[in-house]
Amino acid sequence: MRDIKINDEITLGDNKFLMIAGPCSVESEEQIISVAMDLRKIGVNVLRGGAFKPRTCPDSFQGLGEEGLKLLSKAKEVTGMAIITEVMDGDELPLVEKYADIIQIGSRNSQNFSLLKKISKQNKPMLLKRGFGNTVDELIGAAKYLSMNGNKNVIFSERGIRTFEHSTRFTLDISAIPVLHERTDYPVIIDPSHAAGLNRYVEPLALGGTASGADGLIIEVHPDPPSALSDSAQQLTVPQFKDLYLKVQKINNIFGKTMV
Amino acid sequence: MRDIKINDEITLGDNKFLMIAGPCSVESEEQIISVAMDLRKIGVNVLRGGAFKPRTCPDSFQGLGEEGLKLLSKAKEVTGMAIITEVMDGDELPLVEKYADIIQIGSRNSQNFSLLKKISKQNKPMLLKRGFGNTVDELIGAAKYLSMNGNKNVIFSERGIRTFEHSTRFTLDISAIPVLHERTDYPVIIDPSHAAGLNRYVEPLALGGTASGADGLIIEVHPDPPSALSDSAQQLTVPQFKDLYLKVQKINNIFGKTMV
Amino acid sequence: MRDIKINDEITLGDNKFLMIAGPCSVESEEQIISVAMDLRKIGVNVLRGGAFKPRTCPDSFQGLGEEGLKLLSKAKEVTGMAIITEVMDGDELPLVEKYADIIQIGSRNSQNFSLLKKISKQNKPMLLKRGFGNTVDELIGAAKYLSMNGNKNVIFSERGIRTFEHSTRFTLDISAIPVLHERTDYPVIIDPSHAAGLNRYVEPLALGGTASGADGLIIEVHPDPPSALSDSAQQLTVPQFKDLYLKVQKINNIFGKTMV
Amino acid sequence: MRDIKINDEITLGDNKFLMIAGPCSVESEEQIISVAMDLRKIGVNVLRGGAFKPRTCPDSFQGLGEEGLKLLSKAKEVTGMAIITEVMDGDELPLVEKYADIIQIGSRNSQNFSLLKKISKQNKPMLLKRGFGNTVDELIGAAKYLSMNGNKNVIFSERGIRTFEHSTRFTLDISAIPVLHERTDYPVIIDPSHAAGLNRYVEPLALGGTASGADGLIIEVHPDPPSALSDSAQQLTVPQFKDLYLKVQKINNIFGKTMV
Repeated sequence: MRDIKINDEITLGDNKFLMIAGPCSVESEEQIISVAMDLRKIGVNVLRGGAFKPRTCPDSFQGLGEEGLKLLSKAKEVTGMAIITEVMDGDELPLVEKYADIIQIGSRNSQNFSLLKKISKQNKPMLLKRGFGNTVDELIGAAKYLSMNGNKNVIFSERGIRTFEHSTRFTLDISAIPVLHERTDYPVIIDPSHAAGLNRYVEPLALGGTASGADGLIIEVHPDPPSALSDSAQQLTVPQFKDLYLKVQKINNIFGKTMV
Repeated sequence: MRDIKINDEITLGDNKFLMIAGPCSVESEEQIISVAMDLRKIGVNVLRGGAFKPRTCPDSFQGLGEEGLKLLSKAKEVTGMAIITEVMDGDELPLVEKYADIIQIGSRNSQNFSLLKKISKQNKPMLLKRGFGNTVDELIGAAKYLSMNGNKNVIFSERGIRTFEHSTRFTLDISAIPVLHERTDYPVIIDPSHAAGLNRYVEPLALGGTASGADGLIIEVHPDPPSALSDSAQQLTVPQFKDLYLKVQKINNIFGKTMV
Repeated sequence: MRDIKINDEITLGDNKFLMIAGPCSVESEEQIISVAMDLRKIGVNVLRGGAFKPRTCPDSFQGLGEEGLKLLSKAKEVTGMAIITEVMDGDELPLVEKYADIIQIGSRNSQNFSLLKKISKQNKPMLLKRGFGNTVDELIGAAKYLSMNGNKNVIFSERGIRTFEHSTRFTLDISAIPVLHERTDYPVIIDPSHAAGLNRYVEPLALGGTASGADGLIIEVHPDPPSALSDSAQQLTVPQFKDLYLKVQKINNIFGKTMV
Repeated sequence: MRDIKINDEITLGDNKFLMIAGPCSVESEEQIISVAMDLRKIGVNVLRGGAFKPRTCPDSFQGLGEEGLKLLSKAKEVTGMAIITEVMDGDELPLVEKYADIIQIGSRNSQNFSLLKKISKQNKPMLLKRGFGNTVDELIGAAKYLSMNGNKNVIFSERGIRTFEHSTRFTLDISAIPVLHERTDYPVIIDPSHAAGLNRYVEPLALGGTASGADGLIIEVHPDPPSALSDSAQQLTVPQFKDLYLKVQKINNIFGKTMV
């Protein structure tokens, strides 16, 4: 597997496991700083948080925009964590690039080829979510767009696909991990939060993904999930996340993987 | 159902049926003019043709870009047909808006909310393809983005969804027609070409969609399908299309619908 | 396409279209006789009605069993219609064979190979429903079991497959019609009732299937749907069915098909 | 969770993990005895092996039938292992019941309600595979049939569902584990072999299922997979299985689970 340098502290690669956590959306300074400090204490080095949110309907909360990016930046200053956040539009790319250490491409933009081409021209690592209606081969096609200008720092994220089963929001496809490892040399991160849709299913999916050979996890954690402005049903509390973190660590120990 | 005016000649609405046809991609002046003249003679009033093509891999033919739009414009001049073409990027929107009578949003951009917001600010009718991984409710959510600034001229297009059945490229979901009619007042156009993936299945799907109550069809027709630069397997020849057109007309006659 | 003789009156084959109708379950003598007489008057020659019902939970109505078969037999006597009914178990096969003119294999038994082998040994025509989780190729495999002992009177029925879209109970896959016609010489009947799950979607699906080239329809009709003991939401009233019948006839006229 | 007694040696229940292994089909005395001895040495206490095989086409190998059951019985005598084997038909139930310690219901019979009712009348534990087209709720409905006569010794098996992704034969739905645990008190066993379809994906899926909280695994192991008469692509060799077994044990140690 390819080495992907996130910052001076963190490099993802063979026998490394990257834990990313943070709220679905950045909502306020207090919210993001408090959860970032808690997560850093647990051992998390990359903070997630949405500033631009892709929402099914236009009347849902759309994120704080640049204000959200600035709050992420403060959280970075305070904690030293790296920042990952989603870009939804080429116009916002310079802004997102300025604040983020990892550029995230969301599931709904996984085949937004215009956006992928624009992102391919910058130099930060890129986390590419699998479209929930996309095959593994289409995901690999999307990665070819991202890497077409020489930036090969692609990180895949499997986050569940659309199936007939509606007990969970999506069906997490853990077989994508070995299939992607076989066909590419990019790491694969599991997103159990969006697959589960309900916080009580996040831990089993996270542990399953870890044991299946994932190279990391990206998990939604909120200081107070019921009050969250988006995805309130699926975010973990900090204590729930801490408990999960320790279990993930034990599984990684078995396989000789270091959490970064 | 809402009336949607395409140009001075064509208005879509109750008891109207809109036939759109043309090649997958605009490839050359000769190709587009010749097929446009043939289609107009058959009775088609709206010409489709891709100038910006969303392709799974970056090394596939990406379309002629602005050159393609200019060729569509020539075909419009020669035949008087209205033009529909896809926009993939907000940056290209002014260009596409200049040449097109209907702005098409492709399946892979059906939840590209940034693009939808930008398109919502112009005044041309908009044909919104259902994302192949999207539910009907998500499609309606996407239409809310398109109409959020007052342009309510949305035309839905069902073009097949992802299922486990791989005999066809996608599974055409004709039940989306009555479901969309029940939940919105926008017309619904069936795209049998992308659902089928093989030209010999296009006619049955087109006729099925028509009889199910669709308000129109959008069909890929190429002067010489085997030589096409994209989707060569699924495009009809002109004689195949003519045959289909006549059958569609007979079905529409039963239901008192006029082809526009 | 192969000719399949149902009885002295009815043979299915090229340019023929078979209309089957009747209630989901046989519930009482009054119910089945009254609906059969109404249907016969409209022009239907094959009566459907379940005596053994495959239900998801054991506490749902399981059908009248042999009593139901006897009531179907009475309806046959009174109206002269042919009878189609489902067999769920090899033990019940002699009984079902005695009363039915067409043996139906339900969606959940589409790959019940033991049952298929037993049915293959009798001589009546067999209507094989596609399993809602089965590919077209698996359906063809199941037909090979049915025909392995020389009875080639197989009629396929497409009744919707499981997909992520839940606006309808299942997604009717009309592309199965041309695909099955291409790969086998058996007729294909569309079941819009089980696909739709809601009676207001039955007509569009029925008309779509007809225009796509189906060789017939099987439709649930009940004298009083709200009081039905099973599938009450999806059954048509007699007047709704009559209206549909006339539309189907008009579509078949276009294609030179005679309704049998 | 309910305790389920397999034999005097083995009881499945809280903090227990049941490992089942063996070939897809019983093929010969040498094959089944040799693999059984190898598996027992590794620590496996339940031997799987098909005598009656559900195959998509009638010309595929259908299993050795009663001869296969007798060979399983010999393997039991020699090794002391418990036997699990599939029953496909009520007529064969007395025979299967005589030889098997656990009665298996295959994926294609998961909603064969006649068979489920017959099996419900015997007293052995029952392993119920999820139909690959069935929801979790339908699986629970099927378990209600199995338990309707008082035998509550139901073991669920998740073995992959049908989705659009065809890199693996089916998509293993590990979220079914917590969902089933929440809604019932029956244990859940993961079958990674049928989900994967290719032996190199079996280990990641097996480990993922284990860490997600499964109560056991059922894995296809063959002395010489390339020569297998069925499912040759997905069976593990004995050394591959041993390696997997040790990893599963380590994961179970973390969660305080004992392998039975």
